[in-house]
Amino acid sequence: MHEDSTKTKSPRRVGLWLVGAHGGVGSTTALGLAALGHGQIAPTGLVTKLPEFANVDFDEPDTFVVGGHDSRSTFRDTVEALHSRSNIFAPEVLDECAERIDAWQANIRPAVTLEASATPWAAVDRVVADITAFRARHKLDDVVVVNVASTEPPATPLHANSPREAFEAALATNGLGVPMSTLYAWAAVAAGCPYVNLTPSLGGSFPAFEEHCKHHKVPHLGQDAKTGETLLKSVLAPMFRQRNLRVLSWVGHNILGNNDGRVLANPANKASKIRTKDALLGELLDDKPQSHVSIEFIESLDDWKTAWDHIHFEGFLGVKMTLQFTWQGCDSALAAPLVIDLARLALLAHRRGAAGALAAAACFFKSPLGASVHDLASQFGMFKRYVLG
Amino acid sequence: MHEDSTKTKSPRRVGLWLVGAHGGVGSTTALGLAALGHGQIAPTGLVTKLPEFANVDFDEPDTFVVGGHDSRSTFRDTVEALHSRSNIFAPEVLDECAERIDAWQANIRPAVTLEASATPWAAVDRVVADITAFRARHKLDDVVVVNVASTEPPATPLHANSPREAFEAALATNGLGVPMSTLYAWAAVAAGCPYVNLTPSLGGSFPAFEEHCKHHKVPHLGQDAKTGETLLKSVLAPMFRQRNLRVLSWVGHNILGNNDGRVLANPANKASKIRTKDALLGELLDDKPQSHVSIEFIESLDDWKTAWDHIHFEGFLGVKMTLQFTWQGCDSALAAPLVIDLARLALLAHRRGAAGALAAAACFFKSPLGASVHDLASQFGMFKRYVLG
Amino acid sequence: MHEDSTKTKSPRRVGLWLVGAHGGVGSTTALGLAALGHGQIAPTGLVTKLPEFANVDFDEPDTFVVGGHDSRSTFRDTVEALHSRSNIFAPEVLDECAERIDAWQANIRPAVTLEASATPWAAVDRVVADITAFRARHKLDDVVVVNVASTEPPATPLHANSPREAFEAALATNGLGVPMSTLYAWAAVAAGCPYVNLTPSLGGSFPAFEEHCKHHKVPHLGQDAKTGETLLKSVLAPMFRQRNLRVLSWVGHNILGNNDGRVLANPANKASKIRTKDALLGELLDDKPQSHVSIEFIESLDDWKTAWDHIHFEGFLGVKMTLQFTWQGCDSALAAPLVIDLARLALLAHRRGAAGALAAAACFFKSPLGASVHDLASQFGMFKRYVLG
Amino acid sequence: MHEDSTKTKSPRRVGLWLVGAHGGVGSTTALGLAALGHGQIAPTGLVTKLPEFANVDFDEPDTFVVGGHDSRSTFRDTVEALHSRSNIFAPEVLDECAERIDAWQANIRPAVTLEASATPWAAVDRVVADITAFRARHKLDDVVVVNVASTEPPATPLHANSPREAFEAALATNGLGVPMSTLYAWAAVAAGCPYVNLTPSLGGSFPAFEEHCKHHKVPHLGQDAKTGETLLKSVLAPMFRQRNLRVLSWVGHNILGNNDGRVLANPANKASKIRTKDALLGELLDDKPQSHVSIEFIESLDDWKTAWDHIHFEGFLGVKMTLQFTWQGCDSALAAPLVIDLARLALLAHRRGAAGALAAAACFFKSPLGASVHDLASQFGMFKRYVLG
Repeated sequence: MHEDSTKTKSPRRVGLWLVGAHGGVGSTTALGLAALGHGQIAPTGLVTKLPEFANVDFDEPDTFVVGGHDSRSTFRDTVEALHSRSNIFAPEVLDECAERIDAWQANIRPAVTLEASATPWAAVDRVVADITAFRARHKLDDVVVVNVASTEPPATPLHANSPREAFEAALATNGLGVPMSTLYAWAAVAAGCPYVNLTPSLGGSFPAFEEHCKHHKVPHLGQDAKTGETLLKSVLAPMFRQRNLRVLSWVGHNILGNNDGRVLANPANKASKIRTKDALLGELLDDKPQSHVSIEFIESLDDWKTAWDHIHFEGFLGVKMTLQFTWQGCDSALAAPLVIDLARLALLAHRRGAAGALAAAACFFKSPLGASVHDLASQFGMFKRYVLG
Repeated sequence: MHEDSTKTKSPRRVGLWLVGAHGGVGSTTALGLAALGHGQIAPTGLVTKLPEFANVDFDEPDTFVVGGHDSRSTFRDTVEALHSRSNIFAPEVLDECAERIDAWQANIRPAVTLEASATPWAAVDRVVADITAFRARHKLDDVVVVNVASTEPPATPLHANSPREAFEAALATNGLGVPMSTLYAWAAVAAGCPYVNLTPSLGGSFPAFEEHCKHHKVPHLGQDAKTGETLLKSVLAPMFRQRNLRVLSWVGHNILGNNDGRVLANPANKASKIRTKDALLGELLDDKPQSHVSIEFIESLDDWKTAWDHIHFEGFLGVKMTLQFTWQGCDSALAAPLVIDLARLALLAHRRGAAGALAAAACFFKSPLGASVHDLASQFGMFKRYVLG
Repeated sequence: MHEDSTKTKSPRRVGLWLVGAHGGVGSTTALGLAALGHGQIAPTGLVTKLPEFANVDFDEPDTFVVGGHDSRSTFRDTVEALHSRSNIFAPEVLDECAERIDAWQANIRPAVTLEASATPWAAVDRVVADITAFRARHKLDDVVVVNVASTEPPATPLHANSPREAFEAALATNGLGVPMSTLYAWAAVAAGCPYVNLTPSLGGSFPAFEEHCKHHKVPHLGQDAKTGETLLKSVLAPMFRQRNLRVLSWVGHNILGNNDGRVLANPANKASKIRTKDALLGELLDDKPQSHVSIEFIESLDDWKTAWDHIHFEGFLGVKMTLQFTWQGCDSALAAPLVIDLARLALLAHRRGAAGALAAAACFFKSPLGASVHDLASQFGMFKRYVLG
Repeated sequence: MHEDSTKTKSPRRVGLWLVGAHGGVGSTTALGLAALGHGQIAPTGLVTKLPEFANVDFDEPDTFVVGGHDSRSTFRDTVEALHSRSNIFAPEVLDECAERIDAWQANIRPAVTLEASATPWAAVDRVVADITAFRARHKLDDVVVVNVASTEPPATPLHANSPREAFEAALATNGLGVPMSTLYAWAAVAAGCPYVNLTPSLGGSFPAFEEHCKHHKVPHLGQDAKTGETLLKSVLAPMFRQRNLRVLSWVGHNILGNNDGRVLANPANKASKIRTKDALLGELLDDKPQSHVSIEFIESLDDWKTAWDHIHFEGFLGVKMTLQFTWQGCDSALAAPLVIDLARLALLAHRRGAAGALAAAACFFKSPLGASVHDLASQFGMFKRYVLG
């Protein structure tokens, strides 16, 4: 399955397994993959489709089959709701792709929950069985598992810092506080699949999981996709630093009205998100300024996430100045292409034999695993060197 | 005068010769150098004072003597007007530095004009004489000449693309459309001084001047300092490109009320400025979007330059999104530290034997000479490698 | 036709004649009237449908028949282009209303032009004939004529200040610089119809026209509908005044990409628009501040008109402060309901016997005819008293 | 003391007693009164100095003597700190007024606290004694008491809805949850002084207090001065309503760094403020939209309060549009002139015999007492009629 030295396009067929498939991001990903497969849309928003990567042997969109876990809704219902409420997607795209996403609908399995499982380990087993059956049924060369489910509250399971065996033993009993995102992640790797965590949920971001990946020789990529306000921070903060302008305070207010926003209206879930959004300023600037980040659920905005940032900074001779920005982006349309990019990158890395956290994926994440670099320019350089190298 | 291999701080004394000394930028530079020399202010805003350059043998602020050309006003009058109208500079700084900038006042010579000179060459001669006398009187090891005068209308002198001798011959007769900024630049180099052009005026941005610098073995740095809106463009445009987001249009409106703004209210002068502000998007993005840049003189703003930019872009599945920013900066306080940085860099490069356009200075300019790189991260890398290398 | 004292809903049938019918505003008006007639949409955006006016005997949307002049395009093509380019109108509305607007399509006559007419008077005659035929064919009780055509360059025809007869005599010869908007207006009134000018074009804004209206006993309403930036000015400027805060400067930048924007890219046409947008600050504030208004055509925005305003003001003890706003509105959807409101108001006023400029319509216009009041609150009070009184 | 029919300027001398005198608002008020008394500054920001009120017999600034309660700091220290940290006040104003505000310093008494008083009634007695002594010492015709102290947590004392006697009886025992702001208010009225509550603290906003004022024949004015974001709401919400545009959501984020902000960082105190800021949308719009208001303490901003509001609204045919604004105001310089206006208005009303809540003051407040009108235009009309009538 590994090293592909010839660099001719492979006749591979691959699977994209979405945990939380029917959410806005999952459904937009399915629709977008279908549209790309038909050659119906330009690859705008896809980093892996930049001209400099034209000769890289990424799996092509038309070679993907989509499956996943979810108990709510369907792909069709979600994309139609996004269309009518948030006014996105051309009707032609919906029409043209309906057949394909309906076919993929048959690959979706009910969400696995802790409540319905005897032990955490039983839940893992169930997920492994679902993924393995999908791979076999479609005769796939490889399957990448991507977590696009709603953000969970922060979690620190016991044994997360222990050896892999101790952690697995805990799963067989009561799991000691292991969140569902982690069970999906553990199962993905146990099934031999590369794993991507697009969310701030714990997933595989702990030492025992790293060991688990190395044991199974699969890469994992995370954590928490950088799609808007934080993306801007990762180019603006280096700009201030490179001009030796001292950032005094950085305030970011985010408002959005989709299901992601609804879940974040719960303070426990919001805590996970704010933690990763706020952390990188300290890394990017010599002095950590006072910072404040809020996320509020404003229903009328639907999928249109709006961020206002106010950056107060000091220049020469102590003069205080201000930069403000407003970012108005469509959450699903910003995140979905990154799912496709990360799936393609994870599959490439798997073929190349990478195991454990993939630092080269840092440019996609708010809290990059395996890398402490946060400025986008450096991260993009790392990505480029890895992909082309 | 060249290579300084020991890296111990030299006991050098250097001169900073400001063309247009009494404008807002020139006067703030003088005040800032005085305050830095006293250790009265932190080096906020100075790129050459970033921690990673602590061991570089730049000339220290307290080793600088300031002189220059200007017929209007004085350093004191300008900084006091900036204080009362634009509400910048702590009164303590003004008090503490008054003596020093008054002493430097004695080094200012009346502006040289074409009108008052028999030929362009006579004007050059006069400038050379002024600079040479300054260097001798203060026993300076080196002098750097920086153009901080008001922006001129665009100019394309005859013979600019001819050999140096042909250009010099033209100067001896009628100059054939050579603007005053170019005569100052020519004279600086003829006097053996490195030259920096902070403005969009022509200065030394033409082939014969490059040859002139190489002949005299001096570096020159330019053109048009990147202090606000364009600085932001140079990090935001690469961000859009690195995410494969297609910029559809980029509109930038600038309002300001200082003398720079008053001069730019003249459409001919404004043309120079807008040309350099607008050019770099085409270089940074694969497809040049529709762009629009305006600069308007709004008197009540004084030195507080405000820019509003509206960036319309297309993401995945054709969804159109928007980024807007407002930058509220104090023009003089943003430009003055760059004068000091560029003076220190030019003097270092001169000692190191550089001649002609210094590409390593690209991160400071809207239209970098000798470099076609416009994204700030790459430019900063070039600067860092040159300075540390 | 006048006073309707019983206040029971009349069984009247009325006509709305749109000059420039197939533009964005005209076509959206037709679609909206059809949708309102079907009871398919809420009356959001319609001032005459506010609860306080529930008992006023306005003509109801389902009693309107639409006709007009235009040689370009069709209603269907325009609304479908708005839907696909600017992403407005629910597909259900388009489907449901298609039959109705196609039927109205048959009432559209080719635009009358000066070029194709022997004299201005021949053009007037042709317009009168078209309107009269429309009224007769559909057995309409009254017809209101509304100018929604593209903005013309500023015009000052000879004899505009002369008696009506002199002006009419001029039309019979060469017109002496009379723009087409004025010929349509003259014809409307000659045909006995109330007239509304939604645009900054001259239309009927001159003394001879006022006399013409009084002679024919019809009201006219204008000029230049207040839909966005100027609407905001008309509440914000009074706020500053009522707090005795001194506005130092008011800068407004407008960007838009529809046909209106394309026409305004022509400096001559733009002049008309900017003149009316900029005038009212002097009326609303005790001291006229420095002001600047720009309008730029930015194609990617289509019908989404975006305005950024920067208001610099002085408060107690001379402290300078700032208000900025960004207005992102859909031009057609903001103007179309005002067409319907003004048509209903003009028809009501006609029935009530009003003749000449109707001051009560001031709240709808940037340059209200017959009224020198510009603050929205006072204007709305005038409107309310007239309508309810 | 009442009706002044002659309209010649009285030779009265009046007192302004500030509860919380040494805060930013109190100290700026003292400085501003001194500067106005000297004729050193224009009356910018003073509503009572608008040209239409030139003939109203308000007490002139030079007839005021300032006193008050506070235990922290001094006038001088506070205004000097505002000058150095927030960069407001011209140094000349500080110099010129130093003597006057130092003289007033002698009139400041230590803050009265519940902790240091045997019973609430003992605290009231102490306040009455301080005010009475001030009035006598300076031979003042009248004294107005204004609460400019830090915002307290929300409070609902027992007996607030009972008759005055029951409430007074409660004060003599343990007060049953009466906050300090209410004790100051009770004492002011008991001493025969009109009372103004500039803050969201309870003060005199309850039935027993209304009865208390009528008993003592004094007016009271409140509550919570409208200086920025809410001022804008009170003109923008009526604009949306008058155009029948449906506001879907209204989000307001406020950041500030002065002592007021520091106190509001305490969630209990913040609750009072947010309640009054958020209430009026429901009053101004037919359907209360989703709304969200936040206030955060951002130290670097000092006295510069910045508000970002995002208003999402629906227009004709269901099209969703957006208005955003940013207000950057200096808190003290916005509130201080309102203190002077309200003091002048309260003294005028007292002379005219007004007793109880003064509805005519509504235009100054977020939660106007005695009036349910929230739109600024109507409120200003009420004020004008009262003052001129």
